[in-house]
Amino acid sequence: MNGAEALLRTARAAGLDLCLANPGTTEMPLVAALDAVPGMRAVLGLFEGVCTGAADGYGRMTGRPALTLLHLGPGLANGLANLHNARRAGTPLVNLVGDHATWHRAADAPLASEIEALARPMSGFVRTTARAAALAEDAADAIAAALGPPGAVATLVVPADCQWDPAPGPAAPRRPPARAGAAPAALEAARAALASGEPALVLLGGAALSEPGLRSAAAVAARTGARLACDGFFARMERGRGLPAPERLSYFPEQAAAYLGGFRHLVLAGARAPVAFFGYPGGASDLVPPGCAVHALAAPGDDAAAALAALAEALEAPPALVPARKRPVPPGGAALDAAALGEALAALQPEGAIVVDESATSGLPYALAAPAAAPHTVLALTGGAIGQGLPCAVGAALACPDRRVVALQADGSGLYTAQALWTAAREELDVTVVVCANRAYRILRFEMGRAGLVEPGPQALALTDLGDPVIDWCALARGFGVPAVRAETADLLVDALARALATPGPSLIEAVLP
Amino acid sequence: MNGAEALLRTARAAGLDLCLANPGTTEMPLVAALDAVPGMRAVLGLFEGVCTGAADGYGRMTGRPALTLLHLGPGLANGLANLHNARRAGTPLVNLVGDHATWHRAADAPLASEIEALARPMSGFVRTTARAAALAEDAADAIAAALGPPGAVATLVVPADCQWDPAPGPAAPRRPPARAGAAPAALEAARAALASGEPALVLLGGAALSEPGLRSAAAVAARTGARLACDGFFARMERGRGLPAPERLSYFPEQAAAYLGGFRHLVLAGARAPVAFFGYPGGASDLVPPGCAVHALAAPGDDAAAALAALAEALEAPPALVPARKRPVPPGGAALDAAALGEALAALQPEGAIVVDESATSGLPYALAAPAAAPHTVLALTGGAIGQGLPCAVGAALACPDRRVVALQADGSGLYTAQALWTAAREELDVTVVVCANRAYRILRFEMGRAGLVEPGPQALALTDLGDPVIDWCALARGFGVPAVRAETADLLVDALARALATPGPSLIEAVLP
Repeated sequence: MNGAEALLRTARAAGLDLCLANPGTTEMPLVAALDAVPGMRAVLGLFEGVCTGAADGYGRMTGRPALTLLHLGPGLANGLANLHNARRAGTPLVNLVGDHATWHRAADAPLASEIEALARPMSGFVRTTARAAALAEDAADAIAAALGPPGAVATLVVPADCQWDPAPGPAAPRRPPARAGAAPAALEAARAALASGEPALVLLGGAALSEPGLRSAAAVAARTGARLACDGFFARMERGRGLPAPERLSYFPEQAAAYLGGFRHLVLAGARAPVAFFGYPGGASDLVPPGCAVHALAAPGDDAAAALAALAEALEAPPALVPARKRPVPPGGAALDAAALGEALAALQPEGAIVVDESATSGLPYALAAPAAAPHTVLALTGGAIGQGLPCAVGAALACPDRRVVALQADGSGLYTAQALWTAAREELDVTVVVCANRAYRILRFEMGRAGLVEPGPQALALTDLGDPVIDWCALARGFGVPAVRAETADLLVDALARALATPGPSLIEAVLP
Repeated sequence: MNGAEALLRTARAAGLDLCLANPGTTEMPLVAALDAVPGMRAVLGLFEGVCTGAADGYGRMTGRPALTLLHLGPGLANGLANLHNARRAGTPLVNLVGDHATWHRAADAPLASEIEALARPMSGFVRTTARAAALAEDAADAIAAALGPPGAVATLVVPADCQWDPAPGPAAPRRPPARAGAAPAALEAARAALASGEPALVLLGGAALSEPGLRSAAAVAARTGARLACDGFFARMERGRGLPAPERLSYFPEQAAAYLGGFRHLVLAGARAPVAFFGYPGGASDLVPPGCAVHALAAPGDDAAAALAALAEALEAPPALVPARKRPVPPGGAALDAAALGEALAALQPEGAIVVDESATSGLPYALAAPAAAPHTVLALTGGAIGQGLPCAVGAALACPDRRVVALQADGSGLYTAQALWTAAREELDVTVVVCANRAYRILRFEMGRAGLVEPGPQALALTDLGDPVIDWCALARGFGVPAVRAETADLLVDALARALATPGPSLIEAVLP
């Protein structure tokens, strides 16, 4: 057995079963080993950001790391933006990055670069294997680091000779420690704050956005009058009819600050204390209002659902009734805008769908309508590194082949990693892509105004415009082997969406928005 | 004047005139300043690798840095692969990377990451501006570092408040030092080696591949019997009828070693000593044969053309006649393969074309035919980070609007940064893209065999296959606003190529190869 096979057998023993690959010459022994080790599925991405974003989606849906297989420093570099999102999501993920043979490094061949230095900003674990005999143990350590808690991006740099040299065999999986619930003192502080009757907000993140977490949170809220909220950049949330729906903090710091202003207590359940997404002239970083006490019940990597269950018990809070919400009705007629799009999707999406939401400015109406949709899972953009949606949808579909995946995708963001469409076609994934084609970096038009640029010049306008020439998303999709249709009216959108959601395999709808 | 305007005025004073931008919120003051500072052209890329690759192409053609404008760590990360190529090419290039306002960093907002750490592996200069008043001087330092010598990637991280706060004004350009020619001792050593009559090779790189460099090298060769060669990963070379044509070192180390084996002297003129591109089991790193003396006449960043001129003078070598080469004839008939493609392009490309060659395995016949083509400039893949061709072609076209640019593009590599097509359409650039559509990562099929994988399994085969589903390059091109045609015969290719080369603006030909 060589090092490559020992590595993959170690991964299989730890329960890993997916490798999202864009390999090159320095990864050839690992490529060969993929056929030698049963149960490790290899999926090709045409670009490394597809692989890392798909691994993020897979990890969010399964709780298990996928492997990526990347080609030296430049290959890793191409995957870093989506690793940034995975890091912010706390997703377990293991990158295997091939490198030159150890004895070839001194030659500084054209593809050589400092791989560890590139990996470190986006990784919670970085190691370079020194010899084939150490590779299996290194892999077991990387997998353990990825599983956490908290979940992390782990990057293992694997020189080519460590792959091809003989190795003694696989390593045993490490036993992961349990995730922490609430510490007794933190539990009591949160309980006392919520029992005080003063205005309180429970900010939910991580496992608090699972169904058990949401139900415990709702019980706490019903018992104490506290409000429930989350920010828009969560890793995963269960949502829809019958599920408690937390309010959502605004992306704009003034609006978020205004919302938070009235609270005297902020209980953090799997969430960080709120900060501004961006800093603006004269603005603030910290959005916690003066005089508001912050109570950290559970950190983002903790078992916030268990912490909330304990909190509900400490408050003697019975299960809360979730208000009935009226099933949304699909819109009709000619006018297609973000509101009609949001209603259409909320009305038509099937139960158990996974919605990957990178819709940016077009997605607000959908986010408001979705709590009345059939129960579903939603994955959001955690780190602000755009180009996450289509890869993440591919990964979610690989994780959950029995569920429909909907990618609600802003057009500007989608163009960073549109190559993901090809992987969806090759793997025949049930992914329905809805492109919100407003043909601009619309968010930057808002941000221009906020920056005081009230009459932007021609170059500033051109830098936020995607309409010259118009990008034909249907042609792009067909180029990658995905059937596509354009919808310029609400009627056409509803028809196309109903058909796409009922048809196996991927398809794309270009929804032309004002 | 704010910091952003002071920065751009500093860049204009230093002669910079192009900013390849993919900005976000943290770069808004710089976006606004682009309209306030005359003569700084802003060009949008849909993906950061387009911006950095175009800046590389622009820098290779002009000798001046273009600016890039990138959005925090993830935006820089997306551009790193082509910065790796620019670093290996010694291209002058200045990245402006926006960051959170200095006072917002401690908040660790979602998009925050260690930008300097990401930049350092691919940059010869990295600095983060501390305050608006320092921004213009920092920019002047970055530009000077980029100009070198040697040329370098310079990365300046610009926090948002340093852009929007008031600044005293632009900084004066630094005076760049002259590039070194040959030191007297190095010149004498090279002269003596070549005059010895022992088998000698002059390995050319950098400025040695300019027309004056090539002519001096040819004079030296004619006088002494030395051979001339370059490796395939040069930044820029002048080529075609009437120009000396160095031999090309093979990518495969055994072939390169066999070629080099007979020489007793190796004179490096703007080139590094040859090393294997990859290390293989039982293989070598260093390709210099035992007993061969290496004479470093000029380093890659030196003025190797001046060094060769001095060497020719020291050897009393008269100008050499370049053998007449027969003008290639376009092929005809049904069979289209890499040989027919190479002949067609060599026959039809106009005088003064710029050929950006990322053709990988499909390009060898063209490389053999091109010395007989009309005189042209060729830009190659310097760092092995694929996805360089289309962006580099865009940058070359922005640099030289009066010249036809031909991108000879492998299909697998082209899919990393196909978004460059849209910039070519928007800017109406005279770029003719020829996609070598063999529908595989063909080089990896070779590498599999070299790795001993003689009967690859289904997963290994799938990871090197681009034919399931077939990628429709014509659809992709039209999606990005570029007219396109597919050629499945040599006749059709010749027709399409002749038409494309005679038509203003971009177009794409998908040449279907076996």
